[in-house]
Amino acid sequence: MNTTFLKACKGEEVSYTPIWIMRQAGRYLPDYHKVRSKVTFLELCKAPELAAEVTLQPVDILGVDAAILFSDILVPLEAMGLTLEFHEKRGPVFPEPVRDKAAVDRLIVPDPEEKLGYVMDTIRILRKELKDKVPLIGFSGAPFTLATYIIEGGSSKSYFQTKKMMYEAPDLWAALLDKITDCTISYLKAQAAAGAQALQIFDSWAGVLGPGDFAEYALPYVQRIIGELKGAGVPIIYFANNGATLLELAKTSGADVLGLDWRIKIGDAIARLGQDVSVQGNLDPCALLLPPDKLEQRVAKILEQAKAARGHVFNLGHGILPETPPEKAKLVVELVHRLSKRM
Amino acid sequence: MNTTFLKACKGEEVSYTPIWIMRQAGRYLPDYHKVRSKVTFLELCKAPELAAEVTLQPVDILGVDAAILFSDILVPLEAMGLTLEFHEKRGPVFPEPVRDKAAVDRLIVPDPEEKLGYVMDTIRILRKELKDKVPLIGFSGAPFTLATYIIEGGSSKSYFQTKKMMYEAPDLWAALLDKITDCTISYLKAQAAAGAQALQIFDSWAGVLGPGDFAEYALPYVQRIIGELKGAGVPIIYFANNGATLLELAKTSGADVLGLDWRIKIGDAIARLGQDVSVQGNLDPCALLLPPDKLEQRVAKILEQAKAARGHVFNLGHGILPETPPEKAKLVVELVHRLSKRM
Repeated sequence: MNTTFLKACKGEEVSYTPIWIMRQAGRYLPDYHKVRSKVTFLELCKAPELAAEVTLQPVDILGVDAAILFSDILVPLEAMGLTLEFHEKRGPVFPEPVRDKAAVDRLIVPDPEEKLGYVMDTIRILRKELKDKVPLIGFSGAPFTLATYIIEGGSSKSYFQTKKMMYEAPDLWAALLDKITDCTISYLKAQAAAGAQALQIFDSWAGVLGPGDFAEYALPYVQRIIGELKGAGVPIIYFANNGATLLELAKTSGADVLGLDWRIKIGDAIARLGQDVSVQGNLDPCALLLPPDKLEQRVAKILEQAKAARGHVFNLGHGILPETPPEKAKLVVELVHRLSKRM
Repeated sequence: MNTTFLKACKGEEVSYTPIWIMRQAGRYLPDYHKVRSKVTFLELCKAPELAAEVTLQPVDILGVDAAILFSDILVPLEAMGLTLEFHEKRGPVFPEPVRDKAAVDRLIVPDPEEKLGYVMDTIRILRKELKDKVPLIGFSGAPFTLATYIIEGGSSKSYFQTKKMMYEAPDLWAALLDKITDCTISYLKAQAAAGAQALQIFDSWAGVLGPGDFAEYALPYVQRIIGELKGAGVPIIYFANNGATLLELAKTSGADVLGLDWRIKIGDAIARLGQDVSVQGNLDPCALLLPPDKLEQRVAKILEQAKAARGHVFNLGHGILPETPPEKAKLVVELVHRLSKRM
């Protein structure tokens, strides 16, 4: 098996820098559209054969060093008893936002094999199909990020309702986050048991919190998840998006790898983080629009700076954009492999 | 006149910390709604008597130490020849996005007194009405932020079209940004000539750029504006929103004051910036939901850390939210005054 990705996560020696791309199984690939045209997004998440098919596409097309399960961070919230809809323009919608004690009390902590069995089935299919070609990454949302969706009823600009609960009803906030955390722990444990060889926790909206609020209202739940998962024996990646001011706190999550968005110079991040953690990132997804020579310069710059890290997994600093030409994604993979071998 | 605000901008000694609030003339005030209900948003911007009326409201109601002109950063783009619409849900819309050379060539650099005279008229009315009670702040958008709106055709999530032009057509980008910069320079000069006693440059979307891109594609235009405005003799505030990783670069803009969003600990920002610049900020707008005792703790923490700054203007880290109870805004002003006097 190509274990380069797993080695970089743990800070072990590698002969080149491994790369995978957030949302690598997705809308920029014509092959994805072929599958997706037959079903809705949520149906695709729940159809293990199809979800496995789109998961494998970028492994073959791009030559990345890891596969990541095709799914969505919000499906466990549906399993907790909420209605989840995906609207073409608005994105995810929870028609009945969770904003009071009764709504929090109604949430269940599901048995993942029972309520989210389709995810574990997808993982089991993938492990067979991948035949140990590259490792398979499982994932979940972080409790704070998941909470924002169900409190706001979807995406938000100001996160007013979320912070309103945090500030005005801290006990209710803690009760809600504890339940989401319990659900996430058993969900990620089930993914590892089904065969996921690494786990990424996406804290997509962590960056709307200042360091004080992040430390008080978001981080403790991530720490609990990662603490509980140590026994699973798989590397854990924590990605606090837009989290330049949260880096030192994010490190206390206990993750093996910290994901970095493109807003920070990777060299600066590594200098602040030191040598007990690996890093993942952080090319601006829009940089894939650059002409090849300029793209190569950017990739080289990141690789050069990241030599100082304990371990480096190359990635974009955010999900690949639907408008990206697939050949540019392929080029990034080739560049990372070629340039890092030379270094 | 209450010159506390102007003194803090220049780093001169003050007996208490001055405060104003971004969007202090706005939707959280019932008094604002009374005026706004009679006209559209754009009509309000263009009616000097009404714009002056809403500008004055927070000075009387909250007791802030500066007034800020009621207007919108996008009106100069309309004066450059573009159609600007405000939709209730989508926000600002430019129905004909600027994406090629022909569209850039069509843009004019307007004479501000001719095409934006209503802004200067508002300023002249305000200076009379304020009777030197508190200073009046004028403002503009920064060229990068203004460019995003006309390239994307409104707000954006990924700023794909903006970065596409930056990366694929750097000469076109430079031509567009130069024109916007020329317009902004004469616009801000006209505001100062009409009586604005300080000027803030809002770079609301600077935070979507990594430091390298910010230095190459956004900062030089801000530097040119501020360089040209030195002769106007008014303090200049530059607010690169979500710019924790851009601080040292933002300082090279030449601004007297740097605005800080709430994502960074103000003490950390001051330590990085040193003593040649004042700072403005940076309470999370959502913190106004906290119970009074906890709100007081947060205000005190910011004031305590900001004692290390050359000068400090208290503000929120982003515009005040429409959902904010006005009495909480009033409380923040009282707290800042009371606590800083004690320190």
